[in-house]
Amino acid sequence: MLERYGHGGDLVTASDLFGITADQFVDFSSNMNPFGPPAAVFAVMESRWRELDRYPDPAVRGLRSKLAQRHGINVDNVLCGNGAAELIDLAIRALRPNGGVGLAVPCFGEYADAAEKYGGHIVRVPMLEDDSFRLSVERVMEAALGDNRPEIWMIGSPNNPTGMTVDRELILKLLDTEAFVVIDEAFLDFVPNEEAISLVQEAAKRPNLLVIRSMTKFYAIPGIRLGYAVGSADTIAKMRGLQTPWSVNSLAQWIGEAVLDDVEYEQRTRRWLTEERQWLSADLGKLGCKVFDSVTNYLLVKLPDECAIDAAQLQQLMGQRGVLIRDASHFAGLDGRFIRLAVKLREQNERLIEALSACLQVRRL
Amino acid sequence: MLERYGHGGDLVTASDLFGITADQFVDFSSNMNPFGPPAAVFAVMESRWRELDRYPDPAVRGLRSKLAQRHGINVDNVLCGNGAAELIDLAIRALRPNGGVGLAVPCFGEYADAAEKYGGHIVRVPMLEDDSFRLSVERVMEAALGDNRPEIWMIGSPNNPTGMTVDRELILKLLDTEAFVVIDEAFLDFVPNEEAISLVQEAAKRPNLLVIRSMTKFYAIPGIRLGYAVGSADTIAKMRGLQTPWSVNSLAQWIGEAVLDDVEYEQRTRRWLTEERQWLSADLGKLGCKVFDSVTNYLLVKLPDECAIDAAQLQQLMGQRGVLIRDASHFAGLDGRFIRLAVKLREQNERLIEALSACLQVRRL
Repeated sequence: MLERYGHGGDLVTASDLFGITADQFVDFSSNMNPFGPPAAVFAVMESRWRELDRYPDPAVRGLRSKLAQRHGINVDNVLCGNGAAELIDLAIRALRPNGGVGLAVPCFGEYADAAEKYGGHIVRVPMLEDDSFRLSVERVMEAALGDNRPEIWMIGSPNNPTGMTVDRELILKLLDTEAFVVIDEAFLDFVPNEEAISLVQEAAKRPNLLVIRSMTKFYAIPGIRLGYAVGSADTIAKMRGLQTPWSVNSLAQWIGEAVLDDVEYEQRTRRWLTEERQWLSADLGKLGCKVFDSVTNYLLVKLPDECAIDAAQLQQLMGQRGVLIRDASHFAGLDGRFIRLAVKLREQNERLIEALSACLQVRRL
Repeated sequence: MLERYGHGGDLVTASDLFGITADQFVDFSSNMNPFGPPAAVFAVMESRWRELDRYPDPAVRGLRSKLAQRHGINVDNVLCGNGAAELIDLAIRALRPNGGVGLAVPCFGEYADAAEKYGGHIVRVPMLEDDSFRLSVERVMEAALGDNRPEIWMIGSPNNPTGMTVDRELILKLLDTEAFVVIDEAFLDFVPNEEAISLVQEAAKRPNLLVIRSMTKFYAIPGIRLGYAVGSADTIAKMRGLQTPWSVNSLAQWIGEAVLDDVEYEQRTRRWLTEERQWLSADLGKLGCKVFDSVTNYLLVKLPDECAIDAAQLQQLMGQRGVLIRDASHFAGLDGRFIRLAVKLREQNERLIEALSACLQVRRL
C-alpha cells in the first residue's frame, strides 16, 4: 500500500511500488494547488541563498508580523511552525489532555496519531454518510457534555477528507463547555470567503481556542514546511516553550513572506477551483461515483455500487497507470468504498477520469 | 544583549541593537564555514524548486543511505533531524532521564535547556581553566559513580565553546557505567582526522551511545536546518517515534545529499582552517589575549588582565563597529573575562583584530 510511511504524496514509495519514476505520476492523493509553487519561491532562492549561512530568525519576526497584519491580530497571537504537523504536535503537548481528545471522524489521521503518541485517549464522534458527513450539533454536544467528555477537540474546517467547513455556531457552543478547541484550517485559504468563516480572530481573543493554518497547500510548497497557529498569547507562549529552537527554516520564512504578496496567484487559484471542482464532480458523477459536497480542493468520492473492486485495489490499478489516488478506507469511519481525490488542472483531471473509467469497468458478477 | 532569542548568529537582534543592517556585520559569534554555502546548494534549488510541491520523503531515504555508506554503518542506525537542535530534544525525550543529565561545563547551552524543558536536573562537572578546560577523567568518573549519578551524559566533542575533542577512552569508561552517553560531534567535520576520532561506528553498535552530527556548520547552511543522529536501531526507532512527521524539509534532504559529494570544498576548508586558526591565535596573543587550544573553527579567548571592560561591554563596542562576537559569560562555568570567536577568512580576521585592538585599549586605572 501507498501509505507505508504516512498518508498521501509519498512519491518515493509510489515509485518503489509501481516501478514508475516519481515525475511520471499525476498525484491526486496529495491536495496541493496544481499551479505549483509561485514564481516568488524561486526568486527568493536566487536572491537570498547565500544568506543560508546564517541561522533562521529564531523568533520568525518578519513573517509573524505580516500574518498578524493580514488577520488583524497581534503578533503575540501567532506562532510559526515546521509545517502544520509540528503545530498539532505542540498543541497536544502544551495542552496535555488527561481527559482525552475529541475528534469528528472521518478526519485527518495526524490528530489521533499526535494524541496517542502522548498517551491521550480518543473520543470519536461519527459523521455519517446519511448526513452527507456533516457534523451534527446534537451528537457533538452529547459527547461534549457526557461523562467521558474530551478535554480537547481537534476539528478540521474544511475537514479532511470530507471537504466541508464546520458551522461556526457549533464551535462557539463547544467553547462554552470549557473544553479546549483546536480548529485545523489548513485548507481554508482555498475558500473564497475565508475571512468570514475563519476563527482566527476569535482564537486570538479566547483562552480555549487555537486555529492551525498551513501555507503549503495553497502555495504548493509542502516540501519547505510552513504552518502557523493563532491563539491567546498564553497558549502561544506555552507552545513556543516546547518548540525546538530555529524550527522554521530561513527559506520557509522568506518564502512565506513573499508569497503572501502574490495576489494574482491567489485570484487565479480561486477562479480555477470554482470552475474545475464543478467539472470534475460532474464527470465523476457520470462514472457512477457519488461525490460529496466540498468547498475546497479535494473531493470525497464513493465508488459505484456495481464496481467489484475496493479502494485499495483501485489505488493499485490506478498506480500502475501512473495516477495516484488516496484510499480513504484508512480514515476512521470510512470503508473500502471511499477514495479521496485532489482537484487538479483540466488536462490532469481528464487523465484521472480516463484512468478511472477504465479501472471501474470491473463489475460485480 | 545579543542573546535575547538564544545564542549567536541572530543578526535581526544585532541589527535592532546596533542600528546597522544585517549584511554589514562580520559575524564572529556564529561558527560557520566562512566560504559560505557550496555552489551545489544553489544548483539543487535551481533544478528542483518546482518539486517543492511534493511532501518531503518522510523516511529521508536518500540522505540516510548516503550517510550510512559514508560512515560504514546501517541505514537503521541513522536519523535525520530538523537541525541538531531537534535531535538533542528528541534524545532527551526518548531517553526520559529521571536520574538527571550530566554535563561537562562550560558547554553548549542547548543541552541544559533541553534537559530542563522536560524537568530533568543537571549534574555539572566543571572543566577548569587551570587544566586548559580539558575534561578530567577523575572528576567525570567521580560524578558517574557517585550517589547523584546522571542517567544521561551530554558531551560535545569538539566541545563548544572550548574547542577540544574528548578523549575516546574516557567515553568508553563512561559507557561501562551503564549511563547513556550522547556525544555532540556538530563541529567534528572541521577536524582533518575526524574518522579516527568520531564515535559514530561505536554508536551504531552500543545500546547506550548516541552521536549527534550537524551538516550546517561545515557547509555553512544553518538556515536550511539539517543534522543527524547515529545510535542503535532501538534508540533511533524511539526517537523517530517522537519526531514530527516530515520534519526534515525537502531542500535540506537534497542539499545534504549534494554537498557530501563536494570533495574540493571539504579539502579547501580543511587547508584554510589549519593555517588561519594558527594566524588568528597568534595575532590574538599579540593583543594580550589568552587563546585556548582548539581543533576546530572557533576559539575560546580570555581577555587581557589589564583590560578594563568585560565581555558584555566588549560585545557592545565591537557591535557598534559592525563586528559581532560571542560573550562567553553566558556559558555556565565562564565569567565576563571570556569571549568566543569564529575563525574566518584572512580579511575578516584582520578586521576583527583591528576592531579588538581599538576596543581593548580601555585599560584598568
